[in-house]
Amino acid sequence: MRNPRTPTASPEIERLIELLAKLPGMGPRSARRAALYLLKKREALMEPLGIALTQAAAHVKTCSTCGALDAADPCALCTAQSRDDGLICVVADVADVWALERAGAFRGRYHVLGGLLSALDGIRPEDLRIGKLVERAARPGVREVILALTATVDGQATGHYITEQLSPTGIAVTRLSHGVPVGGELEMLDDGTLFAALQSRRPL
Amino acid sequence: MRNPRTPTASPEIERLIELLAKLPGMGPRSARRAALYLLKKREALMEPLGIALTQAAAHVKTCSTCGALDAADPCALCTAQSRDDGLICVVADVADVWALERAGAFRGRYHVLGGLLSALDGIRPEDLRIGKLVERAARPGVREVILALTATVDGQATGHYITEQLSPTGIAVTRLSHGVPVGGELEMLDDGTLFAALQSRRPL
Repeated sequence: MRNPRTPTASPEIERLIELLAKLPGMGPRSARRAALYLLKKREALMEPLGIALTQAAAHVKTCSTCGALDAADPCALCTAQSRDDGLICVVADVADVWALERAGAFRGRYHVLGGLLSALDGIRPEDLRIGKLVERAARPGVREVILALTATVDGQATGHYITEQLSPTGIAVTRLSHGVPVGGELEMLDDGTLFAALQSRRPL
Repeated sequence: MRNPRTPTASPEIERLIELLAKLPGMGPRSARRAALYLLKKREALMEPLGIALTQAAAHVKTCSTCGALDAADPCALCTAQSRDDGLICVVADVADVWALERAGAFRGRYHVLGGLLSALDGIRPEDLRIGKLVERAARPGVREVILALTATVDGQATGHYITEQLSPTGIAVTRLSHGVPVGGELEMLDDGTLFAALQSRRPL
C-alpha cells in the first residue's frame, strides 16, 4: 500500500510538504514537487518566499474603511487623492478589487463586504461589512453605490439587501450590466447570460 | 488592457504573489488566489509556512554519500541500520527516492545521480554523481546495483554508461522491469510499453 505521506524525508521537508499541500490547487503530489523545486532554488526562491510570507503576515492588514488588504490602514486605495470619493464600488472579496484595478476601469472608492449573504452557508448581514457601507454611503458627497457582485442567487440576495439598507439615504444604487463577455464565444455561454444579454440589448 | 501584475496591492502582497507564481504549476492567477488564501489563514498556514521554508532552506542539505536531501549528512537512509548495504538503487532525482520509499518496495541504499545524461541539455557524466557511485559500488559487501531510471533515451543512455563504468568491479547491474503498470488499462498505454510487456511476458 502506498503511504500518501513521505515518511522517510526529514521532518523539515515533511512539514514543508504538509503545509504546501494546503495551498489552493495543491495536493500531496504537487506539494512534493514544489518542495523539491524550492530546495533546488534556495537563494532565488525559497528564502525570499519564506521572508515574503513572514513579512506579509506581519504587516498586511485589513483596511478599517473599505476592507481591502494593505500594509497601511486606511489603505492606499482609500487615501489616493486622485480617486473619486463620490463613487463606492461594492465587491464581495479583495480579489474582486484586484481584478477591477487590473482592468483600470474604476477610479472611485471600494467597499469589500467580505463575502455574500448565504442561507446555505449561514452568512447573515451582520457577518458582512454592510453596516460600515451604509455609514460610508451616508457621508456628504457620495453620489452612487455600484454593486459589483456576482450574478448568482447569493450575489442578487446581497444586492437586494444592500439596496434596501441604502434606500433611506436616497443615494443611487446601480449594478454591473449583465451580458456577453467581451471576446467570449456565444456557444460557450450559459442560458442565463444569453437571456440577460438579449433582454438588455442595445441599439447599434 | 489588462495588467498581469497587481499594481495596486501593497508591495508586500505584490512580492508574495510574484514569488508564489514561480512555484511549479502556479501562474499569476493561482498565485493571487494562494496569496489571498494565505492572508486569510495567517496563523494556521501563512506564518507556519514562512517558518517551514526558512527552516528547510537553512537545515536541509544534500547527503554527501547518496545525494538525497535530509537535515543530517549522511542522511537517515544512508545510516539506517535496518537497510541492506549490499544493494544500491540508482535514481535520477530525490523525488524518485521518495516514490520508492512511499511504495516501501526497497530496503537497500540509494544513489541519486542528480539528473540523466542528455546530449540535448548538455548534461555530461561529470555533471552527475557517477564517480561517487563507482566508488560506493567498489566497496566490499556490495552485491548489486539496481538502475531505477526512466525508460527514455536519456535514461537508457545513462544506464548504459553506468553499466560500462561498473563493469571493472564485476558487480551485478540490473534494471527495473518494463511492462504494464499494475491497475493500468491496456488501451491507455503507449506502443513501447506494450511491446516491452509482450517481449518480457511471463508464464502464469
